[in-house]
Amino acid sequence: MDFVIHPQLLADCHQLGKLQLCHVLLHRSAILPWFILVPETESSDLLDLPDDLRHAAMDEAAMIARFIKTRLGYEKINFAAIGNVVPQLHLHIVGRSKGDSCWPAPVWGHLNEAREYSTAKLERIATLLQGDCGLQRAIER
Amino acid sequence: MDFVIHPQLLADCHQLGKLQLCHVLLHRSAILPWFILVPETESSDLLDLPDDLRHAAMDEAAMIARFIKTRLGYEKINFAAIGNVVPQLHLHIVGRSKGDSCWPAPVWGHLNEAREYSTAKLERIATLLQGDCGLQRAIER
Repeated sequence: MDFVIHPQLLADCHQLGKLQLCHVLLHRSAILPWFILVPETESSDLLDLPDDLRHAAMDEAAMIARFIKTRLGYEKINFAAIGNVVPQLHLHIVGRSKGDSCWPAPVWGHLNEAREYSTAKLERIATLLQGDCGLQRAIER
Repeated sequence: MDFVIHPQLLADCHQLGKLQLCHVLLHRSAILPWFILVPETESSDLLDLPDDLRHAAMDEAAMIARFIKTRLGYEKINFAAIGNVVPQLHLHIVGRSKGDSCWPAPVWGHLNEAREYSTAKLERIATLLQGDCGLQRAIER
């Protein structure tokens, strides 16, 4: 059966595509580059994954972090696996900079400002990810 | 030169000891089991670490997460590497349960209730970690 991404994540995010292990989502708030990786697993906690799967998920997270720093120009990454509201395992990789509107608070529960991505900007990010990280593109729903 | 843990982390936490790579701290708030691992590295971002070092840090985080679930009886783990306030790399591993006073918010910026660990409880946690995870005990400052 096809792996199903939790509807709350699909409501909150643009679905960009898939890496080897993880689906790549981008939070709809364009205030900060907030990527969410959803590994294809039934486990809810990152630290419950078998070593090889956890390492593979973290390698993909590191690839997205490098992308945020080098391509999008952010100096700092916040990383988290929380899942208190959406139980499906998902990894937050968020680009931060000292000038951002949420600094120094973490984004979870503190990002009040809203701005949408333009279609052109989304397309550019997905195209760059395809080239840099081997993203297999999704059809946006 | 000896590795120096950031003074803000030492102010916020009990210093329990060290695993192979990471120093093990326990947040002074006893509301939730909130462990903080400090790997001996100069890097500020978890996802900037070389693969082998990141995997080793995550293996130690997974060991602490298993400890929280099996020994302390918590069902859920929140994991994060943020570092917007304290730049020294440190990993949060927090035991959560649906009945806790902060649920479902993440602890960062949302933990308002305060309770101290007793000396006996701290001693018991450190002793268990010594047996289960090979913790080398620190002298509490």
